[in-house]
Amino acid sequence: MPELRKDPIIGRWVIISSERGKRPTDFQESTPRKKGGFCPFDLGNEHTTPPEVLAYRENGTAPNTPGWTLRVVPNKFPALQIEGELNKQGEGVFDKMNGIGAHEVIIETPLHDATLSTLPLKAVENVLWSYRDRLVDLKKDVRFQYVLIFKNEGDAAGASLEHSHSQLIALPIVPKRVREEIDGAKQYYQYKERCVFCDIIRQELNSGTRVVSENRDFVALEPFTPRFPFETWVMPKHHDSSFEDMKSHEFQSLAEMLQGTLRRIDKILNCPPYNYIVHTSPFREPDNDYYHWHIEIIPKLTKVAGFEWGSGFYINPTAPEEAAKFLREAKI
Amino acid sequence: MPELRKDPIIGRWVIISSERGKRPTDFQESTPRKKGGFCPFDLGNEHTTPPEVLAYRENGTAPNTPGWTLRVVPNKFPALQIEGELNKQGEGVFDKMNGIGAHEVIIETPLHDATLSTLPLKAVENVLWSYRDRLVDLKKDVRFQYVLIFKNEGDAAGASLEHSHSQLIALPIVPKRVREEIDGAKQYYQYKERCVFCDIIRQELNSGTRVVSENRDFVALEPFTPRFPFETWVMPKHHDSSFEDMKSHEFQSLAEMLQGTLRRIDKILNCPPYNYIVHTSPFREPDNDYYHWHIEIIPKLTKVAGFEWGSGFYINPTAPEEAAKFLREAKI
Repeated sequence: MPELRKDPIIGRWVIISSERGKRPTDFQESTPRKKGGFCPFDLGNEHTTPPEVLAYRENGTAPNTPGWTLRVVPNKFPALQIEGELNKQGEGVFDKMNGIGAHEVIIETPLHDATLSTLPLKAVENVLWSYRDRLVDLKKDVRFQYVLIFKNEGDAAGASLEHSHSQLIALPIVPKRVREEIDGAKQYYQYKERCVFCDIIRQELNSGTRVVSENRDFVALEPFTPRFPFETWVMPKHHDSSFEDMKSHEFQSLAEMLQGTLRRIDKILNCPPYNYIVHTSPFREPDNDYYHWHIEIIPKLTKVAGFEWGSGFYINPTAPEEAAKFLREAKI
Repeated sequence: MPELRKDPIIGRWVIISSERGKRPTDFQESTPRKKGGFCPFDLGNEHTTPPEVLAYRENGTAPNTPGWTLRVVPNKFPALQIEGELNKQGEGVFDKMNGIGAHEVIIETPLHDATLSTLPLKAVENVLWSYRDRLVDLKKDVRFQYVLIFKNEGDAAGASLEHSHSQLIALPIVPKRVREEIDGAKQYYQYKERCVFCDIIRQELNSGTRVVSENRDFVALEPFTPRFPFETWVMPKHHDSSFEDMKSHEFQSLAEMLQGTLRRIDKILNCPPYNYIVHTSPFREPDNDYYHWHIEIIPKLTKVAGFEWGSGFYINPTAPEEAAKFLREAKI
């Protein structure tokens, strides 16, 4: 059983995922899977994944057979386990609980070589719909407080399979970084009675220097304090606290903005590995005035990792105003 | 002038280091410098670095010439600038100040191929003395609140030169991760009137399962909630809030413990790239009862980076009890 452990000093939770139990010799440099090798996410290989929990597929096709355009399946090597009780307990000064949660993979397309940049817009929109459908479903499980949706693209960004996919982890806790954002946004709201994200968006759209692009509903911008070069946020222009409550016409609008932004990043940075993370309100604080959901995109360009991990301090060699200019002027 | 910017949501400061200004094409994969290439840290190349601010050298030898066993020089490409005023100011919802600070390099040895694992113990002890000497000196500059001392070993851990060196950055702010630790430790102290680190050390020495090794003054252990496989902390066994106040006999003791721990890591993980960071009390809170200085060592073994960066949530595939056993039993 994986274990969730709480740091007694700063209160950060960590998953000790003993099921994936890595021994020293397991940390050799991974070789990227060769093209043409076996891929469990390819059409016809549906039986090699755990049974699908959601699929968008042609009418009349059976689950776990071809005919799908998108599948969501449990991760074969989950960081957390779906069955069981939390069983919170202490161990002297330490706190822990069972690593209960869901860990699912969103297989975004049957096409092995496609990416979110190259897929038809409708397919990208479906990826966003699948995020929403899983959020709505997992919200019903009272053990969960948060669902983290994220994507690792490229080996250097942590993707172990090259076939385009996202992942989600449903958690019995709200992760630290999200908690900090929520708390900070709440404090700002108490003081100003305005959403800090709305204020930022207003100011950024006025000045324009850090804006990458905008459409009717969304804006892509470089944050004022990016931790990493070309870190880019996609945000709804109008206040909205929860991803899953997006209006239905906004899914297409978001698909355009997300794909457009990824294409700009691909163009300017030569298809770099990247991660993105969907930040949305915790399940128990839906529909609030202070938090504003958004997607953070982080191209993997620099290596100065341990220092930042250890100190929480970031040195970014690229000013966001510069990065925004490059991305804004990219011809896509 | 580099700029320090404060995130308006969670309050994290970031250095925008425009002097190092990286453009998109600068992010190609770096190739490790070849052995035999020019190294500014080698004996005889002293004139190619900025003038030394500290050196341990033979009597009678001139600064910036051979005859040294350790040199501290300003970083040639500093993330922060030493001259100037902080000039704090707002920009709408945002806060910023000039990137004033010191960025120095500790050249640990004249021997190009030596590492902290292979150097004579006395040389390792001198590295620790140089940390102390620079802390004491930089403390006098009232603009600084914190000095972060860290080491990147190996290209994948962010070292741009292979010649063994540490770095320090003096900052006009206390970095977020350290601030969180101090605040958490203070809270624990208010509640229990004991240092949380002292409580942890006592519990760990009693149980032994996460202890790697100990000597009279220091203990090396795997924390209960390691973010990364084989993350290891070296801590003074008796309460001590500030690195620079270490008793003089403890420098040798720490050198033994640090070198021993690095040798264990080298042995078990085949000389992995690693980072370590010295966590000590901020300059304006010296000599307190709640914070306990320590060194965090993070071998660079995994790649799942963006997700962790984005969420503050860590999945660790190696239980610290397992890691401790491997390191404890390493024959060094």
